[in-house]
Amino acid sequence: MTELHLDPDRLFPSDAATREIARHLYQAVAELPILSPHGHLSPELFTANDTFSDPVRLLIQEDHYVLRILHSAGFGLEQLGLTPANGTESVVPAREIWRIFCSNWHRFAGTASGYWLTSQLVGVLGIDDMPSEESADATYDQIVKALASDDLRPRSLLDMFGVEVLATTDDPMDDLAQHASLEADPSFPVRLLPNFRPDRYIDPANPTWVKRVASLVESFGAPVSDYRAYLDALAARRLHFKAHGAVAADHGVYEPLAVNLGDSDAAALYRRGLTGSLSDAESRAFQGHMLMEMARMSTEDGLVMMIHPGVFRNHSSRTFQRFGPDTGHDFPVRTEFVCSLRPLLERFGMHPGFHLVLFTVDESLYSRELAPIASFYPSVYLGAPWWFLDAPDATLRWRSAVTESAGFYRSAGFIDDSRSLLSIGTRHDMSRRLDATFLARMVREGRIDLPMAERVAVDLVHTIPREVFKL
Amino acid sequence: MTELHLDPDRLFPSDAATREIARHLYQAVAELPILSPHGHLSPELFTANDTFSDPVRLLIQEDHYVLRILHSAGFGLEQLGLTPANGTESVVPAREIWRIFCSNWHRFAGTASGYWLTSQLVGVLGIDDMPSEESADATYDQIVKALASDDLRPRSLLDMFGVEVLATTDDPMDDLAQHASLEADPSFPVRLLPNFRPDRYIDPANPTWVKRVASLVESFGAPVSDYRAYLDALAARRLHFKAHGAVAADHGVYEPLAVNLGDSDAAALYRRGLTGSLSDAESRAFQGHMLMEMARMSTEDGLVMMIHPGVFRNHSSRTFQRFGPDTGHDFPVRTEFVCSLRPLLERFGMHPGFHLVLFTVDESLYSRELAPIASFYPSVYLGAPWWFLDAPDATLRWRSAVTESAGFYRSAGFIDDSRSLLSIGTRHDMSRRLDATFLARMVREGRIDLPMAERVAVDLVHTIPREVFKL
Amino acid sequence: MTELHLDPDRLFPSDAATREIARHLYQAVAELPILSPHGHLSPELFTANDTFSDPVRLLIQEDHYVLRILHSAGFGLEQLGLTPANGTESVVPAREIWRIFCSNWHRFAGTASGYWLTSQLVGVLGIDDMPSEESADATYDQIVKALASDDLRPRSLLDMFGVEVLATTDDPMDDLAQHASLEADPSFPVRLLPNFRPDRYIDPANPTWVKRVASLVESFGAPVSDYRAYLDALAARRLHFKAHGAVAADHGVYEPLAVNLGDSDAAALYRRGLTGSLSDAESRAFQGHMLMEMARMSTEDGLVMMIHPGVFRNHSSRTFQRFGPDTGHDFPVRTEFVCSLRPLLERFGMHPGFHLVLFTVDESLYSRELAPIASFYPSVYLGAPWWFLDAPDATLRWRSAVTESAGFYRSAGFIDDSRSLLSIGTRHDMSRRLDATFLARMVREGRIDLPMAERVAVDLVHTIPREVFKL
Repeated sequence: MTELHLDPDRLFPSDAATREIARHLYQAVAELPILSPHGHLSPELFTANDTFSDPVRLLIQEDHYVLRILHSAGFGLEQLGLTPANGTESVVPAREIWRIFCSNWHRFAGTASGYWLTSQLVGVLGIDDMPSEESADATYDQIVKALASDDLRPRSLLDMFGVEVLATTDDPMDDLAQHASLEADPSFPVRLLPNFRPDRYIDPANPTWVKRVASLVESFGAPVSDYRAYLDALAARRLHFKAHGAVAADHGVYEPLAVNLGDSDAAALYRRGLTGSLSDAESRAFQGHMLMEMARMSTEDGLVMMIHPGVFRNHSSRTFQRFGPDTGHDFPVRTEFVCSLRPLLERFGMHPGFHLVLFTVDESLYSRELAPIASFYPSVYLGAPWWFLDAPDATLRWRSAVTESAGFYRSAGFIDDSRSLLSIGTRHDMSRRLDATFLARMVREGRIDLPMAERVAVDLVHTIPREVFKL
Repeated sequence: MTELHLDPDRLFPSDAATREIARHLYQAVAELPILSPHGHLSPELFTANDTFSDPVRLLIQEDHYVLRILHSAGFGLEQLGLTPANGTESVVPAREIWRIFCSNWHRFAGTASGYWLTSQLVGVLGIDDMPSEESADATYDQIVKALASDDLRPRSLLDMFGVEVLATTDDPMDDLAQHASLEADPSFPVRLLPNFRPDRYIDPANPTWVKRVASLVESFGAPVSDYRAYLDALAARRLHFKAHGAVAADHGVYEPLAVNLGDSDAAALYRRGLTGSLSDAESRAFQGHMLMEMARMSTEDGLVMMIHPGVFRNHSSRTFQRFGPDTGHDFPVRTEFVCSLRPLLERFGMHPGFHLVLFTVDESLYSRELAPIASFYPSVYLGAPWWFLDAPDATLRWRSAVTESAGFYRSAGFIDDSRSLLSIGTRHDMSRRLDATFLARMVREGRIDLPMAERVAVDLVHTIPREVFKL
Repeated sequence: MTELHLDPDRLFPSDAATREIARHLYQAVAELPILSPHGHLSPELFTANDTFSDPVRLLIQEDHYVLRILHSAGFGLEQLGLTPANGTESVVPAREIWRIFCSNWHRFAGTASGYWLTSQLVGVLGIDDMPSEESADATYDQIVKALASDDLRPRSLLDMFGVEVLATTDDPMDDLAQHASLEADPSFPVRLLPNFRPDRYIDPANPTWVKRVASLVESFGAPVSDYRAYLDALAARRLHFKAHGAVAADHGVYEPLAVNLGDSDAAALYRRGLTGSLSDAESRAFQGHMLMEMARMSTEDGLVMMIHPGVFRNHSSRTFQRFGPDTGHDFPVRTEFVCSLRPLLERFGMHPGFHLVLFTVDESLYSRELAPIASFYPSVYLGAPWWFLDAPDATLRWRSAVTESAGFYRSAGFIDDSRSLLSIGTRHDMSRRLDATFLARMVREGRIDLPMAERVAVDLVHTIPREVFKL
């Protein structure tokens, strides 16, 4: 058996002198509370607070990063225990899937997932054998045993990681009862914030748009054909979210396009959209108009606006039809902000209190568009590296590409965006280590004095996320 | 108070062995004269040779990099003392603006501006307290006092920095009287070169085009409707510039598009342009045609052609209307050279003596388009990293991306492109340090022998700019 | 004279501790056999097995990387001894061209070619003086003498480099007689594989398409107008290649576009294409359709499909007309895979045994499109850095950009793609050194344990290329 090992100096710079500085900077932030203003965990995880049953669901099946890599190695999603639509529940034994995972551990070498998994296996689950065909059964049993402990229930994990603020991502029609119950629960000390995510309510090209809009507007007591009521209902749902602690709305649009439509044009498109008769261009214009409306509402209710654009989702139709979304075949596409978002920035970019956090999975935008925009418009903040870019080297490339134009204070703090509770500790730790590494190099290169680096390191974790997300 | 500190090893590599090589390479070029064949200083600075009055105008108000960062932190340009169009002159006391700047010093940490400002504060102005709310008043007074010295007058600064050649950027109709007077002044030893910048005379979409073209052609003694006279007048103005020392023409086009129009088509568009009736596509074609004409004239009069494309200028209409251009809201856009510029390269790319220096603010072009083009066409040189990319990490990324295809000898030497006299010394010094750092790594990695690195380091500062810009 | 020097630690990391790890990892792979499943050498090189006559043809005239750099320095291709179309054979003495090359040695400093040339000059040809005007004549004589030795004949070089598998790139109508003769030759121990390259047979916009298609279909015994026979003839030629050892087909398309046309639409376009009456859009659609057909055939005959897209070839018409293709003026253009290739991936992306290796000369695709696609679709592999990106820094950028999403096991192993026999050893050695460097950093940063790094280093050279290319 080969030892699985967690280097205390992991992610620090190679050069010993610089490493020493990074170690020092990291010490000051390693134990600070975690602020996680955007992610994809379910509130039920904490209302139920059940123990996790086995490592397969926890580490493999609900993590599309991990699924993706095993799928690319030739393992079908059925083999990994996912249940196809209209299919019968998987009967692949969890232990069998764990063996596949362990036998393919080398495929995770060098990946972000490999890094996170190692941290979780060693640091949380107490495993010290490298996953392999040989070690699979033993580690499976070890993890099952560990998971039975109360120390690894969802609430205990939040405590272990030092989570102070955590966010979910929710449908606008969600009643947020789970959030209310947790807020009312004195034994749950974490601030659990819903995020308002209206994508399917503002995009007429979404196949469920008509149905959702009808439910939205009718629940508001108006006929679905009433465009003004549609806007008011969205505003009301935002206030409902705000009343349950929300600080932000999140927008997963294909392109970050903002369009200025007059009210009557918008209303006309809206009504024709309800009959399903919009052209692609009209749908796109209406969605762009609604992104503007969402910004306008943010200037009114104060919810921070996040935009996560530029992902071609569900690339493999067959996989989507069988296994649904978030199963590993979403791919980034080229994105553009300067022209697309201009109408929104012209109108709201300097609105006091408006906060707009821009994310991208297109690295070429970092220095070309995002840092320049964020270093002029006071509303715009640079979202942390997202998805395929949420990894050590990619994060350092991001800091390198944006900092020289925009400084550290236009970045919005780390966002884990996680669907995996177990990974939250290591993701935030990774970010802190990488910022220490980046800052240490700047100190070593005589570009920042050490006292400034110390201040920046703390602000990135402590001050900036509170300011940007109004926590 | 925290000390503000200038590390003698700044920008050198982290690794001690490599750092030693970089130090050695830098020594050989640190004191070589500065050749600055493109920039934005005003010749009046040197004819008047007045002392600078206060640090605010000098370091903040005329530097759109600095304005931009303070603006993004929520300080309106009025608060920073800029006078709005049709507004009354700012009454914000300079000392007050200096306090804002000092209180926000952390926002400059890690930026190119932060690096340059530190060099200027410590190295030129003798400040050794880190800017902060507490130190603001004292440093303000210190700087005001320092600026009163003759040693910090514009001419003295050129001498302090070792400037041998300096360029301005000028309107084609400029009489260049200031340049003539400086050339005739034996006490001014610097070669001050005008740059011919005809953008607004060749783009029919520019709102001032008709007026400018009329003044150009009529001053040439021809009716404005005479297309041939328009070309001849431009050629004559270029010769006027050349007679006053110009070695280059500069082109700030939105896209680097070259179009082959026949003479009669061009003349027809020209005449219709004068009536304001061109479509966008026609304007674009005419401007592309004129870029070709500018290249043709360069092959005739020998002026080096520079192209600075790909910037969306004046993104915030409100800011532009109130405060004019160059106030921090110009953003890069995606750019393309291979197809756009092909007609020009086909026609003039191998013309003996034609020099074309291409700049970009789109990093993705470095390895994909620019290095390949410059390593085939003998006329094409790689412009130094520009604007948002004129920073330590970005410069090293540039060298890394272009050198492996094109070598060092297709790069055009450092261009400071500065609007800030005080920053010229540190900008050139930064470039020399970074080239030493890049070369030192190549030596350490066994990719260049040390004697070759020594030669290249000197050529980059001394030989190459003279050759490329025909100095 | 300055010594020309080959550092045994070349390309290893600067930091001493990391360098030690890299050295260790490299040792394990340095002597492993070379597998080269794609390249551009001619089989005649080995059937004839002639000695090379002089260094100019060997190192300069047949290497468009080298020609390009000398051309950009102002040396016309005539001066470099190339014979223009319809011109008389060059009479420039080889020694004269060698002098030009040596006098311009500084222009190769820092380039990939400079690195390869140094390795060949020192490591293969035994030169230890740095090329220069002064040393030119002596090194010329030395090389001529060395080349006369049997040790530097083509077959001996393969032996010296440890080549086990080598590929050529061949026209579909090639009879592959040279390959057959080498396969039958017991004294030639290398597996020499043809690559099926049908570009000019599937692109109706190619000026030779009609002629080639006619020859293809008629040799198959069918009338050229028979679309079905056209497909069958292509399939038959693929089988002919397979029978001569081919494992792969290669596609040098301008864009990686796949189009689903119905059979009757395709047949109609085909027949109209034969009359030369397709619009650009129709040609593009037909070519996209044929890329789909090529993929389909790969799923049937098992040939690995390679796509090398995104190059604007023969940019300078004048140079192309005089000197033909591959003379240094091919430039990368922006490329897109996610949408363009989707129809192909939808249809064949999960076909068992289908292998699709994607290459690019557009770095912005690494993290944005290629790594995500290859880490989901089991058929897709990441081609090694290609052409302008096949260089030390570019290769490390590639590993950094793709590994964090896709791991090491979705990369396809090193591809030298070489037209220069003498460079094959150093190109593979470079790749092994760079992978050791990349892995060593990961070990030093605590991201991979050393035993895993050792496994990956060997798999990248030994296991992965065999699997991906079915060797």
